[in-house]
Amino acid sequence: MTIAQRAERVRARLAHTGAEALLVSDLTNVRWLTGFTGSNGWVVLGPDQLTLVTDGRYGEQAARQMALAGVAAEVLVGATGAETQGHLAGLSRVHRTIGFEAAHVSVQQHAAWAAAFGCTLVATIGVVEAERRTKDTAEIELIAQACRIADQALAEVVPTLGNGLTEAQVRNQLEIRMRELGAVGPSYDTIVATGPLNAALPHHRPTDAVIEDGHTVIIDVGALVDGYHSDMTRTFVIGRPTPLQHELYELVLAAQQAGVAAVAAGLSTKQLDAVCRDIITEGGYGDWFTHGTGHGVGLLIHEDPFVNRAGDAILQVGDVVTVEPGVYREGFGGIRVEDLVVVTSEGCRVLTASPKESPCPPFPPTI
Amino acid sequence: MTIAQRAERVRARLAHTGAEALLVSDLTNVRWLTGFTGSNGWVVLGPDQLTLVTDGRYGEQAARQMALAGVAAEVLVGATGAETQGHLAGLSRVHRTIGFEAAHVSVQQHAAWAAAFGCTLVATIGVVEAERRTKDTAEIELIAQACRIADQALAEVVPTLGNGLTEAQVRNQLEIRMRELGAVGPSYDTIVATGPLNAALPHHRPTDAVIEDGHTVIIDVGALVDGYHSDMTRTFVIGRPTPLQHELYELVLAAQQAGVAAVAAGLSTKQLDAVCRDIITEGGYGDWFTHGTGHGVGLLIHEDPFVNRAGDAILQVGDVVTVEPGVYREGFGGIRVEDLVVVTSEGCRVLTASPKESPCPPFPPTI
Repeated sequence: MTIAQRAERVRARLAHTGAEALLVSDLTNVRWLTGFTGSNGWVVLGPDQLTLVTDGRYGEQAARQMALAGVAAEVLVGATGAETQGHLAGLSRVHRTIGFEAAHVSVQQHAAWAAAFGCTLVATIGVVEAERRTKDTAEIELIAQACRIADQALAEVVPTLGNGLTEAQVRNQLEIRMRELGAVGPSYDTIVATGPLNAALPHHRPTDAVIEDGHTVIIDVGALVDGYHSDMTRTFVIGRPTPLQHELYELVLAAQQAGVAAVAAGLSTKQLDAVCRDIITEGGYGDWFTHGTGHGVGLLIHEDPFVNRAGDAILQVGDVVTVEPGVYREGFGGIRVEDLVVVTSEGCRVLTASPKESPCPPFPPTI
Repeated sequence: MTIAQRAERVRARLAHTGAEALLVSDLTNVRWLTGFTGSNGWVVLGPDQLTLVTDGRYGEQAARQMALAGVAAEVLVGATGAETQGHLAGLSRVHRTIGFEAAHVSVQQHAAWAAAFGCTLVATIGVVEAERRTKDTAEIELIAQACRIADQALAEVVPTLGNGLTEAQVRNQLEIRMRELGAVGPSYDTIVATGPLNAALPHHRPTDAVIEDGHTVIIDVGALVDGYHSDMTRTFVIGRPTPLQHELYELVLAAQQAGVAAVAAGLSTKQLDAVCRDIITEGGYGDWFTHGTGHGVGLLIHEDPFVNRAGDAILQVGDVVTVEPGVYREGFGGIRVEDLVVVTSEGCRVLTASPKESPCPPFPPTI
């Protein structure tokens, strides 16, 4: 499966929407369809043509990236916003109906298009995303490579956690090592959250707080490789865990392991969320688990399918999702354990490999 | 001027829209109004109330960040997307009319709100942005600090440019040094573009290409400090410039210096663009200057006012904008020189300080 074949997958889906052509505005969808990585661009996908419209900064780059991806497509460049929009109008009006991405097009943009295009605009939802969600072998390999880089960086940094480092210093080390190991960068703002206050925030940003004895430390780290993201969390306890730290670590770990074991094509994301949530709730800490169990990962760090209480997606082979239950409470801190897995015909393959059996670095030798 | 006073500035503007309250969806606008930095949140701004709605990951963080910013506001937390949207509906229906941000709300989101809210939705454009555009003293100081960090990192890296380094290695060094100097990170993907192909792409991403003798090297680098961005570009020639490299560097520099000299409150962004563009066009290279002259910088790296051929904004005191003409051609490479300036009552203050008189590192001593 190559990038060039993706347009055909989308055309098959478009046939069910009542639109002759699709105007793709979401830049991640544009990239997935064409290989183009610029910050401004639209694709018009017709029954037998694909055209990319962008601005003067990206004409040359777009032509090169699409040639590299084997995508046969025309590039139209607008020198101003008005010219760019003029190209879109020209490409649209040859069709009677054109689909637009209702989740990605603003009310303002839609009004301008409705006035300028000489055809009927049809709202579509998730046409490209429904295909993009299923990762092919090459995509899975890039995500796996990103996971290996984050695993390696974390393995190098963990033994230093008790040495008086700050959250920000640990973050810097992780991000520098991931770069040196071949990542384009971190796949999101690396989280290093320590102590009874900071670790109680699931999305804390690293500060100059020193990691101290007795603290729980949540490290949520991923690498970005050729546009593809990884995502992993491990929690550590510095020094000897208190009984509560021990109890909660074991509880979160049990929930997370049960979640990974349950992942299979055909399971709904709501059911997967319940597998993890029920264990934490039965352990008495349901109201400390304040977020969903996971989300899809690919060209975006958060994408379909989302795994939470309201999730009605059904897991499919080729979905790449996180399994990441956690508990948080001001005064205690927090604990989260997260792996990234790809759904296979046999269940799932876990792409992240950092040890998680114990929260105490350095890790005991694994059996 | 503090964060807490910003709501009042927006209310004054809202009075002209016909909406009783404003539902703010754009996360940058949410942050500017409240200090909240999470990745999910909405603000409902009524005549005498401000409420932040977010999800379970961010309830605690939102309360702390708003307290720190001195913003008196309620936080409502939704455990699921449906609950979050329910909070927004509840807050909206007490008003007869509520404004929404037509540039930031998708057609899909708007349809859901129209069905769920018991009040009239009024499309507004740029209400918060019109105030956010004018930077206060504290904001300008953060941007200036980000500029100083990038200046310092660049000064350290420039003398190494001829040493066989790759584009990616130079990028890594710049980003590591900016972190060590106190930046949260780079303010965008640092550009290091060398040679006749890569430097011909205005938004090239660094590769493993080695910087060689005879190459032009474009370095576009900025730092992120407490949410505020800097932006600067310098171009270098490795070794002795060819006559064409020399001619084009002098031409771009002259255009850029003329642009900076012209910046003043009352000038339209179209006029500022013309100051730079006319010089490059008269020099015979108008069609090599393929992008706009600049853009606003603040909590976003690209924001109002945009400086290009179609720009009809009028520069105001407190605008922070880039001035960055450039020329690009495959086979030649590219040259861009960019400063970040803040519009003052006397013209402008240049916030970036890296030398630009000559493209040849190490720089000759300045007089």
